[in-house]
Amino acid sequence: MATHRFDPNFTKNVINAIGPKTSPRLRQLMTGLIKHVHDFARENELTVDEWLAGVKLLNWAGQTSDDRRNEGQLLCDVIGLESLIDEITFTRAGEAKDAPIATAILGPFFRADTPWRQNGEDIVKTKPANGEMVFMHGQVLDFASKKPLVESTVEVWLASTNGLYEQQDPIQEEFNLRGKFKTGEEGRYSFYCLRPTPYPVPNDGPEGKLLELMDRHPFRPAHIHIIAMHNGYRPLTTQIFDREDKYLDNDSVFAVKDSLVVDFVPRKGDPQASLELNYDIKLVMFDAVNGA
Amino acid sequence: MATHRFDPNFTKNVINAIGPKTSPRLRQLMTGLIKHVHDFARENELTVDEWLAGVKLLNWAGQTSDDRRNEGQLLCDVIGLESLIDEITFTRAGEAKDAPIATAILGPFFRADTPWRQNGEDIVKTKPANGEMVFMHGQVLDFASKKPLVESTVEVWLASTNGLYEQQDPIQEEFNLRGKFKTGEEGRYSFYCLRPTPYPVPNDGPEGKLLELMDRHPFRPAHIHIIAMHNGYRPLTTQIFDREDKYLDNDSVFAVKDSLVVDFVPRKGDPQASLELNYDIKLVMFDAVNGA
Repeated sequence: MATHRFDPNFTKNVINAIGPKTSPRLRQLMTGLIKHVHDFARENELTVDEWLAGVKLLNWAGQTSDDRRNEGQLLCDVIGLESLIDEITFTRAGEAKDAPIATAILGPFFRADTPWRQNGEDIVKTKPANGEMVFMHGQVLDFASKKPLVESTVEVWLASTNGLYEQQDPIQEEFNLRGKFKTGEEGRYSFYCLRPTPYPVPNDGPEGKLLELMDRHPFRPAHIHIIAMHNGYRPLTTQIFDREDKYLDNDSVFAVKDSLVVDFVPRKGDPQASLELNYDIKLVMFDAVNGA
Repeated sequence: MATHRFDPNFTKNVINAIGPKTSPRLRQLMTGLIKHVHDFARENELTVDEWLAGVKLLNWAGQTSDDRRNEGQLLCDVIGLESLIDEITFTRAGEAKDAPIATAILGPFFRADTPWRQNGEDIVKTKPANGEMVFMHGQVLDFASKKPLVESTVEVWLASTNGLYEQQDPIQEEFNLRGKFKTGEEGRYSFYCLRPTPYPVPNDGPEGKLLELMDRHPFRPAHIHIIAMHNGYRPLTTQIFDREDKYLDNDSVFAVKDSLVVDFVPRKGDPQASLELNYDIKLVMFDAVNGA
């Protein structure tokens, strides 16, 4: 621990209070957490008022969280923690050669109860006036062999053009812009959705307050969330980003990776959509990666 | 920052996102916080599940907090943070020679609206069957000159013998075992109270869960909270501890300092109390301390 003018035994005493029945991993995590929190307080000579302001922010996060909103997670997102943990997970799992598709954070708007949809279905159940329709399609493939994976699950969700996911927005039909698809022959999936648009993360709670205090904008670049799964393969959680978005370089939650940027191209002769996105998803077998 | 196998620019990018209008102090604190949080995550290769468990605990703290309970603060207390900040504050303010009375944490049970009492008043408004009555008295003095300070404010609060402060306990009268006193001639204050008893910190919320996970007992040694103030003097927030308490060496919130340990002695000829505590409070003028 760093040298400082405070009681040199204090942190050690707090760590040593951890009892013998604690699991080794929890002991490791609490030891690290206590050291870093204490070092942070000492290095910055944190005042009572500053500490209490932080406690208030944390309590506020819990108070504004419920089944549909997780402000504790949002606070972590704006300091990059969720994206960092995503990178750690990806690095640990993917230390095989030839990195598969990059991962990205799950984010707070995932819903476990998203309904199944038919391939080719339009998931825009509530149409905004200003939306551009997209036909998104592709194959789920084995990363190594490029073999199509029939009966994979592809789950997607995105915000509407007003910047809100359906569970944040009383105007949208439930499960609007969400769907789970089962791949058919040649591992193909397809659906109609909106071209995603950039949106601000919620600014009426502690996350918004923290961003304001840090003089940062709240925008996320336009993206579509994807989870893909197939038996025997490592599940993939990612996001794909619109190359034309102006927030690509300064995502408020630091989730963009170059390999996740995609191009929406004009689609001809389809009355249902003026744009098209062809996106293949490559999954890695459990055996092929270390420790997975 | 430490060497590691993850993106070497990630933390820098998150810090550099802080905008130009942020106050210098907030920039310093957020920079330090982001570095420590990221280092903690990388050093321990924090998993998604572990991180989400932490988020859940933090959200739970907010959800169980209200006007009468501050679980965010309690969580900080059990990892020693409030006591450490108290030490930092005391060190910064008291770098004059001849340290005055040591400070101790305010704790979560302070109430700003505690009523005034008369000197000599009994603050045990709800008598427990098993309480030992104490006559506590003393003088408020100038630390340097030992001159008595008339019209000082002395505020005290303590838990009852069931381990609960009045706001936690429907059985106790409101403001039981609390009072604010104005010192009279020779700077004297006095009141009747209970001999304090050890008690566990709340164990029905995230603080209790964290203690259980760390295999630690929840007890605080018996103590009386004191705040003393006088115009032109630095306010003192402290706690005094009963020398006979068995938890003196392992306070669950790490607040005990040797100089704050006191002796309750037998009191003769007073039908109202079998014990006595004579405790003088020394305050330091604002001019006498650096930076205060």
